[in-house]
Amino acid sequence: MLIIMHADASEDQINSVVKRVEECGMKAHLSQGEERCIIGAIGDGRPVQKDQFLYMPGVDRIVPITRPYKLASREFQKEDTVFNLDGVTIGTSSIVLIAGPCSVESRSQMIETAYAVKEAGAHALRGGAYKPRTSPYSFQGLGEEGLEILAEARELTGMPIVTEVMSIEQVKLVVKYADVLQIGARNMQNYALLHAAGESQHPVLIKRGMMATIEELLMAAEYVLSHDNRRVILCERGIRTFETATRNTTDINAIPVLKNATHLPVILDPSHSTGNWEYVTAVARAAIAAGADGLIIEVHPNPAEAKSDGGQSLKPERFAELVSQIRAIAEAVGRDLFAKKAVFVK
Amino acid sequence: MLIIMHADASEDQINSVVKRVEECGMKAHLSQGEERCIIGAIGDGRPVQKDQFLYMPGVDRIVPITRPYKLASREFQKEDTVFNLDGVTIGTSSIVLIAGPCSVESRSQMIETAYAVKEAGAHALRGGAYKPRTSPYSFQGLGEEGLEILAEARELTGMPIVTEVMSIEQVKLVVKYADVLQIGARNMQNYALLHAAGESQHPVLIKRGMMATIEELLMAAEYVLSHDNRRVILCERGIRTFETATRNTTDINAIPVLKNATHLPVILDPSHSTGNWEYVTAVARAAIAAGADGLIIEVHPNPAEAKSDGGQSLKPERFAELVSQIRAIAEAVGRDLFAKKAVFVK
Amino acid sequence: MLIIMHADASEDQINSVVKRVEECGMKAHLSQGEERCIIGAIGDGRPVQKDQFLYMPGVDRIVPITRPYKLASREFQKEDTVFNLDGVTIGTSSIVLIAGPCSVESRSQMIETAYAVKEAGAHALRGGAYKPRTSPYSFQGLGEEGLEILAEARELTGMPIVTEVMSIEQVKLVVKYADVLQIGARNMQNYALLHAAGESQHPVLIKRGMMATIEELLMAAEYVLSHDNRRVILCERGIRTFETATRNTTDINAIPVLKNATHLPVILDPSHSTGNWEYVTAVARAAIAAGADGLIIEVHPNPAEAKSDGGQSLKPERFAELVSQIRAIAEAVGRDLFAKKAVFVK
Amino acid sequence: MLIIMHADASEDQINSVVKRVEECGMKAHLSQGEERCIIGAIGDGRPVQKDQFLYMPGVDRIVPITRPYKLASREFQKEDTVFNLDGVTIGTSSIVLIAGPCSVESRSQMIETAYAVKEAGAHALRGGAYKPRTSPYSFQGLGEEGLEILAEARELTGMPIVTEVMSIEQVKLVVKYADVLQIGARNMQNYALLHAAGESQHPVLIKRGMMATIEELLMAAEYVLSHDNRRVILCERGIRTFETATRNTTDINAIPVLKNATHLPVILDPSHSTGNWEYVTAVARAAIAAGADGLIIEVHPNPAEAKSDGGQSLKPERFAELVSQIRAIAEAVGRDLFAKKAVFVK
Repeated sequence: MLIIMHADASEDQINSVVKRVEECGMKAHLSQGEERCIIGAIGDGRPVQKDQFLYMPGVDRIVPITRPYKLASREFQKEDTVFNLDGVTIGTSSIVLIAGPCSVESRSQMIETAYAVKEAGAHALRGGAYKPRTSPYSFQGLGEEGLEILAEARELTGMPIVTEVMSIEQVKLVVKYADVLQIGARNMQNYALLHAAGESQHPVLIKRGMMATIEELLMAAEYVLSHDNRRVILCERGIRTFETATRNTTDINAIPVLKNATHLPVILDPSHSTGNWEYVTAVARAAIAAGADGLIIEVHPNPAEAKSDGGQSLKPERFAELVSQIRAIAEAVGRDLFAKKAVFVK
Repeated sequence: MLIIMHADASEDQINSVVKRVEECGMKAHLSQGEERCIIGAIGDGRPVQKDQFLYMPGVDRIVPITRPYKLASREFQKEDTVFNLDGVTIGTSSIVLIAGPCSVESRSQMIETAYAVKEAGAHALRGGAYKPRTSPYSFQGLGEEGLEILAEARELTGMPIVTEVMSIEQVKLVVKYADVLQIGARNMQNYALLHAAGESQHPVLIKRGMMATIEELLMAAEYVLSHDNRRVILCERGIRTFETATRNTTDINAIPVLKNATHLPVILDPSHSTGNWEYVTAVARAAIAAGADGLIIEVHPNPAEAKSDGGQSLKPERFAELVSQIRAIAEAVGRDLFAKKAVFVK
Repeated sequence: MLIIMHADASEDQINSVVKRVEECGMKAHLSQGEERCIIGAIGDGRPVQKDQFLYMPGVDRIVPITRPYKLASREFQKEDTVFNLDGVTIGTSSIVLIAGPCSVESRSQMIETAYAVKEAGAHALRGGAYKPRTSPYSFQGLGEEGLEILAEARELTGMPIVTEVMSIEQVKLVVKYADVLQIGARNMQNYALLHAAGESQHPVLIKRGMMATIEELLMAAEYVLSHDNRRVILCERGIRTFETATRNTTDINAIPVLKNATHLPVILDPSHSTGNWEYVTAVARAAIAAGADGLIIEVHPNPAEAKSDGGQSLKPERFAELVSQIRAIAEAVGRDLFAKKAVFVK
Repeated sequence: MLIIMHADASEDQINSVVKRVEECGMKAHLSQGEERCIIGAIGDGRPVQKDQFLYMPGVDRIVPITRPYKLASREFQKEDTVFNLDGVTIGTSSIVLIAGPCSVESRSQMIETAYAVKEAGAHALRGGAYKPRTSPYSFQGLGEEGLEILAEARELTGMPIVTEVMSIEQVKLVVKYADVLQIGARNMQNYALLHAAGESQHPVLIKRGMMATIEELLMAAEYVLSHDNRRVILCERGIRTFETATRNTTDINAIPVLKNATHLPVILDPSHSTGNWEYVTAVARAAIAAGADGLIIEVHPNPAEAKSDGGQSLKPERFAELVSQIRAIAEAVGRDLFAKKAVFVK
């Protein structure tokens, strides 16, 4: 941490800052410029409040040097994290496709979709049993009945299940049915939930909050990793900006930035990041071209009758078309689509 | 809801949309413009997915007409909601000031602050026992011990207590100790938590998410109100924008917009909305000038030693100065500061 | 335009609005819902101020129906606009690559770069003679001397020149030297400049303002098109958001949205949209995968000595590597890189 | 400037950076932390490109220390800038009110408004002769005829005139008619125009771009100040965010931040910053409470018939009511409204 003093900070003020740096167990290193003094605080500043210094007389600004995340960083672990989800390996050069409806609406809808996306080339199945809805008057999900349907879909198709948890209680239940716990965008900074997901030792897919910086997404991962639960997938799903032509703005930069900063697998959700089925395929292609390790995509047999997110869901035949386009892009960047080879990592 | 068709939508496509509108229990009203057809869906569209229509062939855009919140709206209830917090009435022309440290750090820190803010003119006491922290390595709060300290501070000073809850379990515990459950910005769309807060029948203070629209804040209130828990306070606390000179951007427009749209009391948190103690007083004055019903402000006896948010906390003497300035502004807009008169509403 | 009245609007208020709609030369169409009345204004509302209605008593909101741009829209012209820049055709299935330094710094730097990017596969040359700089103390460009150097580079390499204009005076000068007038992001809503660029009848490349919506970008194009200057290229170059990990946020959604909304060629500038050379190639690939018609990329023989934008410039060898990757992506989406075939459109 | 090296930067890489720092005329100061090396570049870094260092091998990040603006800063000039506009003094403890229509539409409209706002308490008159309009099909202003009308209004009422310039040509013309050249939000980074405004030696009012940071606003002022034209007024007019309930988001924090950072007068435009007449008065009060030195407000005798911005214009009687409320707020913060006392500064 660097503590930048005001141009007119007094010697006493500088000394007080130095003293506090030392009280925090760090070494202070003074650097006197022409205009102002800069104090470097050397040592592990992670548990220290930079705010403690901000308030001190004579202090202008604080510049953090150490990244606040550690376990999630490439500096901590150089090689990519690779893990196995019931036969599907994520984190290698083979792209993983997760598909399915926004919500589990009924047994027939879910089973039909599961078979359809599998046939089209999906590797894992998504579907929400608990739905975070802006309105208390909207469909809130089938709950445990939905989980049972998902479990049946897994049994029938052999695909691992990704489903959202919204509270600590749900974590306990969902681990019995699903392969990956999804932390939704609105709960990305629900720290109680992140702790519970970490403790579960179940794979976790964390969606970037629509207001969260890339660094905050990595800090959310750090919460899970700090419980020694290392099977974490990061998912860009669009951020909120001033642009209203699409529901969200896909931050495509986040793909190479994350691949650079962390060893964890990175995927994109083009359904939410665009909010419009017409743009899903183009943005899915972009994600793979930019280096993403996979995609999570909303598919519904009859989007016009979906209980949620119909406008951004693909019909199975469009999804099949997307898969063939993604295959071509994957090859263009020297990768391929995951094939159920007998790869068992971990 | 209005369904705006593409300029080249076919008659069949228009008929399909009309049919679906009617299946949803609404009446369809066709309006043929020079360029395109617009279909009005008349009736209560709240439980209907606008997305269902967005996907239909020939549909260009959907324009919602009815606001998605109902119980929170001025149309539903014209008069201001007024309620009593252990002798302090909020929602009248008398401004209410809530003050205290970011976190409960120790018994002595909390009791000292409680007396100091009371003497300076605060009406209620804030302090966090459970802290949402970006980093798992930061101080996470004292938990139930913190709640006990808060309860003691209330007993000693007679001030009602506002404190944050981060999970359903905490709701059960906190209602025993505190007067107001605070839903933090990061949990504003944690719907499981909003349901639990609603069910508790305890007063609830909802902070606007840093990337939540005003409408979404009102929808969060609707979650609580839908449990017939009507004692809800809304709090603007700054939104996230491109500007980095301050931690957040105070959306001062939100004050008159909310006072217009809803009957609920509206307050501002200038400590978080600026993130810098130097700007807190100016922005606090602005809030009252713009029509806010109260303020919630971080005060710490020794900000430079605070375990969190030291940089945005006021010393008690500065807070006392703020109170006197707020009094002057309140009078300039024909209001006053709440005085512990024997007002018992509800 | 739809005029949505308040739920409690009086009959008199509705009648006044109807009257004004008719005074504006449009027909009024009343639609009485259960809660409120909606008035459709039928006819060409482009020259009409929606604000005129917003102020009228009883009016709640205005919903525009007609897009404000016309000549730029796909509805106006279904086929893609294709045009020729000194032998290079843009707007077909063949991708066009524009490359070169941020600023023209010297004859040797420019000529060296021109040969290098041509050899690597670029089709056109960029380079700034007039530089918009945040600081008055930064290098402001070589001016006309820079234009002369650019003209020489064109003569030597045969590549058309793209260069920025910042004022009406410069337009008059630059048309003598360059093939494409670039309107920079900061001038996207400099309407005096847009008018001058339109009047010049020279091809124009408009960069999206970092604060501009997609619709506003199309309106900027409309300014140029309204002078019957139809050779306009649109360029996404990143927008400003809360994210600070990259200089700007590449709005990759804008590519399919623009390709859908307009017939004009759409390109991406990954140098500015990321601000960091490390991410340029990944995001360039994403743009082509998403459907862009070309790229404009900063290349400098010695980025560490560039007078501007060194941090986001590629060395020629990295640019050559980018070209080969873009070729692979182009083929994966059924396109190719432009080859100097004898295509003469217009 | 601080140059933060990667944790694994080699000694050679560090030496290269040190060498370049020295080549740039600065001194290098090494600080070796536990994890990484930080190189301080001591000296005036304003003309140096931080990008030059960003690209160098081994460099992680650059942290600017010196603010990029100088003449605009409080460090350069401690006392407030105060100047006289034809009898009206701005920059003292007396609040200045500028009012008038968005556009000059006709002689009668302008003269009527001028008398009305003067009677209500305005000190200066605003009105646009050249209008930046999103659409080429909208009313673009009366041009020089509008300037003549403004000059007549000044003669009749004695109020100084504030009007917008959009191009260098207009600057030459407008200085003959008006007292203050307004640089609009869309032109805040039109550097050619800023240079021309600086050279004119005429007072300049710079509106913050809707996506410009506070620092960029100060850099725009620096452009004007660098021509030794010191009569500059800064105007917050709302920024663009994700919130759509109001046209823009008033960044009220900008008021105390600017008053702290610069000696220049700071005013607010609540008409644009809210975009809705209903919220103008509340936000105007907030600005004065937060420390603004003045307001610029749109007033129209018949907003429903305004050719632009009708929805955010006040009727004269509402403006009169606003003035009386502003007077009360000014007194509450120890200030007053400017009274035409014989104050002659400069």
